[in-house]
Amino acid sequence: MRDVAVIGVGITKFGELWDKSFRQLIAEAGSQAIIDSGISGKEIDALYVGSMSAGRFVGQEHVGALVADASGFSQMHIPSIRVESACASGGLAVRQGYFSVASGMNDIVVIGGIEKMTDVVGTEASNILATGLDQEWEAFFGATFPGIYAMIATRHMHDFGTTREQLAQVAVKNHANGALNPYAQFKREMKLESILNAPMVASPLGMLDCSPVSDGAATLILCAAEKAKKYTDKPVKIIGSGQASDTLPLHGRNDICTFESTTYAARMAYKQANIEPSKIDVAEVHDCFTIAEILAIEDLGFVKKGDGGKAIDNKITTLDGKIPINPSGGLKAKGHPVGATGVAQIAEIVLQLRGEADKRQVKDAKIGLTHNVGASGASCVVNILEAM
Amino acid sequence: MRDVAVIGVGITKFGELWDKSFRQLIAEAGSQAIIDSGISGKEIDALYVGSMSAGRFVGQEHVGALVADASGFSQMHIPSIRVESACASGGLAVRQGYFSVASGMNDIVVIGGIEKMTDVVGTEASNILATGLDQEWEAFFGATFPGIYAMIATRHMHDFGTTREQLAQVAVKNHANGALNPYAQFKREMKLESILNAPMVASPLGMLDCSPVSDGAATLILCAAEKAKKYTDKPVKIIGSGQASDTLPLHGRNDICTFESTTYAARMAYKQANIEPSKIDVAEVHDCFTIAEILAIEDLGFVKKGDGGKAIDNKITTLDGKIPINPSGGLKAKGHPVGATGVAQIAEIVLQLRGEADKRQVKDAKIGLTHNVGASGASCVVNILEAM
Repeated sequence: MRDVAVIGVGITKFGELWDKSFRQLIAEAGSQAIIDSGISGKEIDALYVGSMSAGRFVGQEHVGALVADASGFSQMHIPSIRVESACASGGLAVRQGYFSVASGMNDIVVIGGIEKMTDVVGTEASNILATGLDQEWEAFFGATFPGIYAMIATRHMHDFGTTREQLAQVAVKNHANGALNPYAQFKREMKLESILNAPMVASPLGMLDCSPVSDGAATLILCAAEKAKKYTDKPVKIIGSGQASDTLPLHGRNDICTFESTTYAARMAYKQANIEPSKIDVAEVHDCFTIAEILAIEDLGFVKKGDGGKAIDNKITTLDGKIPINPSGGLKAKGHPVGATGVAQIAEIVLQLRGEADKRQVKDAKIGLTHNVGASGASCVVNILEAM
Repeated sequence: MRDVAVIGVGITKFGELWDKSFRQLIAEAGSQAIIDSGISGKEIDALYVGSMSAGRFVGQEHVGALVADASGFSQMHIPSIRVESACASGGLAVRQGYFSVASGMNDIVVIGGIEKMTDVVGTEASNILATGLDQEWEAFFGATFPGIYAMIATRHMHDFGTTREQLAQVAVKNHANGALNPYAQFKREMKLESILNAPMVASPLGMLDCSPVSDGAATLILCAAEKAKKYTDKPVKIIGSGQASDTLPLHGRNDICTFESTTYAARMAYKQANIEPSKIDVAEVHDCFTIAEILAIEDLGFVKKGDGGKAIDNKITTLDGKIPINPSGGLKAKGHPVGATGVAQIAEIVLQLRGEADKRQVKDAKIGLTHNVGASGASCVVNILEAM
């Protein structure tokens, strides 16, 4: 397999974007990435698109075909592949597109991630998200994402002494980062008291422990690394990629405080990159709930299992900490248009490794990691990138 | 890229399977294919799954994770990738899995296709299928699949003199084939008069010009060709694969009687296989409506553009004709669980090339083709297979 580089990125602002349609968001992120990379349309071999549930959020399946059309590539007959793995759909699209270039099948591919979640009303967004859980054994009986992650949080507190304040401090940190990110849905700091006093959603998780319902899109251009310098002075190479599954319902797991999909995917990615977790300078991890960031930094090997809460107290995950986590603001503050998230994570890491992350820049970042989880950990994609 | 072979197939009966759940169908087709191939679970590197709209038909996204779980592979953490391209989702899953083995990334992969469409009531199945059309420019204004294909049929009749009887004869032929297929939803012959006198759906297409709403699943095991003989005496090699897109709404096309996604995908597949259309001994094509089979045999190069109707009169597409089309009964008689269709097409061709198609066996079939269309032609996947 040959080396592959990211040569262009595009991100729309995330948020409640009622004035923009699904296809407008695709076109906006896509044209940004194409301009950023300097490629022309006729150089594109294929499109890979991640979207979780456009069929339910906006009544549109055949998402690959729509993206080809909205981007102006359908009349060039460019093949377009939509992949889905719940909230890990974006990361999976990157991985599939990456392999298509690494194998030599394609030279240049466009990766898109998209979700428009705020066009539905009432509890419908929650119902749609719950289709990522096990329909027959979880969602049918009323389980929702906050409920599932609340059980995990409760168990983590029981097993490791993790505190309510530590959970809340994850949100405080990610809001502080989000305040520096022009693309973020919540571009504002939040005080600890506000997080702690927010209305309860599923104990111990309050409203401000939860990532929001969002609209947004993100795009990357991937290119064979040997040709990347033709397009950009700052290509960013994908040096490792891993994907793994776990039982769909939570009840099948040995231990609900460890996502084995993460540990397996991470092991695969670290092995390919031939590095230890300590070599990672910056990471975007899947903090759909505050507890999820704590699990993530443990399962990715940044801290020991059970020490995720203490890592927040010790401030090792802040922008100037030992391992800055979610400089973009994460899903919590940047927003979480589910199909776009995994692609946007890579876009953020690319900006960080290029030194273009402005006020949220992590100093001397050379190697970055992204971690994208499907639902409650039944799937996970980990990618590792390095400045060339 | 290295050669890839199909070493196992599994198909459930297609039909209104109210006594079987989504996960039961997956397990049934999957275990058949695994037994057929003789592989063991721990040899599997990845799963690829095609499903169009499980999120709407059965309230389940994260379909890859469910399939991994229902097949017993989630605790082995095997990565699972769900792809979607409306009614071409199955063919796309085959193509993506094929590339993953051809590239050397995987040695053995399982390809699944699944849809359970009969658990919804009233017009909901039509509404869900219409999400494969352009939501904003077609479905929103009431366009449905029969309506769209009726426009194409009307134009084809106008341009080429295709007759109502020729359309109906496609259904007569496919029902005759389906009557010989134990997996078929409609295992019975139909007379020309019955087709012509069926209730009108969208002029000129009557109810018996339309493929049914179906439940079903199909599975294939793909393996690097150099290792295939270890598992089976009759491996079937994939010798060509093509995919292409076209405008999502019909109004963007130069000519609605030609699906350029088919012509481009076919050209790509024929080029890779290094053969002419005349070398194909048997084909499974996407006859979601009778007119669609007529377009398909033209666009695939089996007959000249406009001669699709005459081909039926001349009986060149029957089981003992020059180019037998849809020996399985096609979508029309075998049934059309949309995500399963593209995988089941390959399963049928594999059985034909192995000489195991029993009463519907095409004599001396050595090279077969499958043609799987997304919605009204905005995407298409063509695969070509040859007995090894």
